[in-house]
Amino acid sequence: MATRPGILFVLSGPSGAGKGTVCKALMERGLGLNLSISVTTRPPRPGEKEGVNYFFRSKEAFEEMIRSSKLLEWAKVFDNYYGTPRDFVEEKLAAGEDVLLEIDIQGAMQVKQRFPDGVFIFLIPPSATELQARILGRGTETEASYRARFGAARQELAMMREYDYVVVNDVVERACDRIAAIVAAEHCSVSRNMHLLDEW
Amino acid sequence: MATRPGILFVLSGPSGAGKGTVCKALMERGLGLNLSISVTTRPPRPGEKEGVNYFFRSKEAFEEMIRSSKLLEWAKVFDNYYGTPRDFVEEKLAAGEDVLLEIDIQGAMQVKQRFPDGVFIFLIPPSATELQARILGRGTETEASYRARFGAARQELAMMREYDYVVVNDVVERACDRIAAIVAAEHCSVSRNMHLLDEW
Repeated sequence: MATRPGILFVLSGPSGAGKGTVCKALMERGLGLNLSISVTTRPPRPGEKEGVNYFFRSKEAFEEMIRSSKLLEWAKVFDNYYGTPRDFVEEKLAAGEDVLLEIDIQGAMQVKQRFPDGVFIFLIPPSATELQARILGRGTETEASYRARFGAARQELAMMREYDYVVVNDVVERACDRIAAIVAAEHCSVSRNMHLLDEW
Repeated sequence: MATRPGILFVLSGPSGAGKGTVCKALMERGLGLNLSISVTTRPPRPGEKEGVNYFFRSKEAFEEMIRSSKLLEWAKVFDNYYGTPRDFVEEKLAAGEDVLLEIDIQGAMQVKQRFPDGVFIFLIPPSATELQARILGRGTETEASYRARFGAARQELAMMREYDYVVVNDVVERACDRIAAIVAAEHCSVSRNMHLLDEW
């Protein structure tokens, strides 16, 4: 019997939604999701580990990955490249294992082109006020960069309609409960279980 | 702000799948589902209570409900009528509450015509062998009626493709876990949450 392919779950959303925190908490639940690690050209921050937080590569190595189609999606943010290695995702899915990508909206839309059957989850902060507080809470923002980030986040919210699910990140563990439910429900979708008709 | 409508969940599936048992266990979980009680013309069995197991009505009263469009779906099985009262379902949904229907496949297909946005869940036994055992286990079947029921169940299985989700009833509590996940996930579907775009 051919292995049924795994499911690709894409966790995405506007800046300030808390994607990283939710993703980390979700991976601790042991739902059988394989987290895709991004590749970047930005230098590691203190404490970041190769192959855990990112694969750290030179600009030249990254551009070679682009040329040889080794990336599912990539973007240049200021002077740094970020991307999703293709092999990991394709190999896990082919082996019947689920994969989790935590990426920005632009990247998610690139992935959707290639994996229309993926499950696209849009994480949002509970309110505009809360988003404001979170951006300011980072304490690293100037007034101008805050305005830019907040404005961008509001615009990004309209991209919700391109997704399958929207999860409000009010409390991290509750957001994880919702995503865990989405994972379980998607495994029950009829379109992913047509093989059952042959087994009878 | 207008109340958002509740979600209609329809639990259905072939004969012998265990719909009744799963439905009962599911209702004990307190997921906020309002169970629709069917109306029937068959006489109450020992222990069955009016308004709990069924609404018991005369043939004349039932036929009057049909004429006055008080039923979402109905069927005549041998000499008895069975149906789903419309008012309960429509009132709960309009009040923003979820409703659970536990009905056979024929009834589910009627409901789907009227509520294409409903969530249609197909419950199946874990295997053909298990279905066989369950039908025989009732101990009330003759050889001929067993063959008829088993053949019908296999044919009914092909109706799976008309549903949104398929839940294997291997263990009742696990089947309930899956349905609870479907309920939670559907509340996160983007199409049911477009109001979030207005709230920002």
